[in-house]
Amino acid sequence: MTRSLSPGRWRLYVITDEQLSRGRSHLQVVDAAIRGGADVVQLRDKTASSGRLYQVALSLRKLTREANVSFIVNDRLDVALAVDADGVHVGQQDLPASAVRRILGPGKILGVTAETVEEALVAEKDGADYLGVGPVFEARGTKADAGPPQGPAIIANIRPHTRLPIVAIGGIKAENARLVREAGADSAAVISAIVAADDIAQAARELKSILSAGDPGR
Amino acid sequence: MTRSLSPGRWRLYVITDEQLSRGRSHLQVVDAAIRGGADVVQLRDKTASSGRLYQVALSLRKLTREANVSFIVNDRLDVALAVDADGVHVGQQDLPASAVRRILGPGKILGVTAETVEEALVAEKDGADYLGVGPVFEARGTKADAGPPQGPAIIANIRPHTRLPIVAIGGIKAENARLVREAGADSAAVISAIVAADDIAQAARELKSILSAGDPGR
Repeated sequence: MTRSLSPGRWRLYVITDEQLSRGRSHLQVVDAAIRGGADVVQLRDKTASSGRLYQVALSLRKLTREANVSFIVNDRLDVALAVDADGVHVGQQDLPASAVRRILGPGKILGVTAETVEEALVAEKDGADYLGVGPVFEARGTKADAGPPQGPAIIANIRPHTRLPIVAIGGIKAENARLVREAGADSAAVISAIVAADDIAQAARELKSILSAGDPGR
Repeated sequence: MTRSLSPGRWRLYVITDEQLSRGRSHLQVVDAAIRGGADVVQLRDKTASSGRLYQVALSLRKLTREANVSFIVNDRLDVALAVDADGVHVGQQDLPASAVRRILGPGKILGVTAETVEEALVAEKDGADYLGVGPVFEARGTKADAGPPQGPAIIANIRPHTRLPIVAIGGIKAENARLVREAGADSAAVISAIVAADDIAQAARELKSILSAGDPGR
C-alpha cells in the first residue's frame, strides 16, 4: 500500500470551497482534483453547520484515503478529530496553534498561516508541520480576512528563516505558479483556479505539472 | 474546596448570547448570572471566529472555575477541549453525540438536545450525560433552528423514558419556570429572561429561587 506524502513533498494543495465551485459539491470538486493530481486536499467551509461539515468531511476522508491523498480540515479541529483527518490548518484568527497541537497529538499534521517572519517563527515554535504563506497574488474574494497581496517576495523573505515546508497561497494559477516555487515554496495552495475551472481535473493536472517541474523522477 | 454540581443537581442553567445581551459582553453577562446563582453556564456564539471564541471561553473558564460553576461550550468540542471546559452541548445539527463522546473521553459532560422520545433514547445510548429538551415555550428568536413550542408536555412525555437529567429549554422565565419542574425537568436553561434583563443578577436570583423550590436545605 502506498502512503500519502509528507508536507515537504506536496506540490499541489487544493482547497475546496463551495462558494466558488459553481454549484459543484465539495465531493465533486475533490474527486476531480484528485484525478488531476492533487497531493493534499483541504476542506474549508465557514458557513455549514457542524453536522453538515462532519458529513462532508466523512465523505472526503473516504475519497482521499482511497486515493492516498492527504486530507486537512480548515479551522475545525473537532471535525478533523471526528473523521480522523490527516491534520488541521489554522489561521491567525483561529484557535492558537499551540492549543491545537496539544489536543491533536504529535502524529497529525498541523498547518499554520503566516504572513510575516515573526508569525512563521511563532508557528514553528508552536508545533506547525508546514506554513501557509501569503497572500502572494490577488485572489478572487476567497479569503475575507486576508491582507493585500505581497508578491513572491513574501515567500523569499520567510524561506531562509524556517526549516518548515512552505505552502504558498493567494491567487495562484497556471500563469504564476512557477514564480512561487522559484521563490522557495514547496507547494502551492490553489482555490479558484481549480475549484472554479470549467474542467477541474484538467486545471489540476496543468498546475501539478508546473509545480512539480524539476522533481526527480519526472 | 467545593466542586461544581453534577447535571442532576443543576437548577439554573444560563446560556449566554451576545446577540441578546443588549451590548453587554459574555463576560459581564456570566459574571452577573453567577452572582444571581447560576449553577451552570453555556457559551453559545455561532458568529465569532474560532480565535475570538477561544479567548471568550478562556475568560469564562476562569470565572466559572473560581465560582465552582459548571462551564459548557455549545457545539464547539474543539474550543471546549482547548480551554478545559466541563463539557459540550450538541444539537441535532452539530457533530454526532457518539463522535463527541469518543473524543471528549468519559470524564467530561456531554449534553444533547432532544425534541422527541426517540432522540432522547439515541442520545442516552450515544453517551449523553443530560438532555436539553424543548422548545417548551415561545422564545424570542434565540434558536433559529428550533421547532414550534411544545409546552411542558414535551418534558412529561420524555421523562419516563430516560434516567438522564432533563434541562428544559425554550422561552423559560419567572412566570412559567415552575411548570417545567412540575413536568419533570431537573433544571431550566434560560437565555433571554436573564441575558436581556435590566438586572441580570436579580433575574437569575428570582429564577433560581423558583427552580430550586422544594429542594432539601432550602
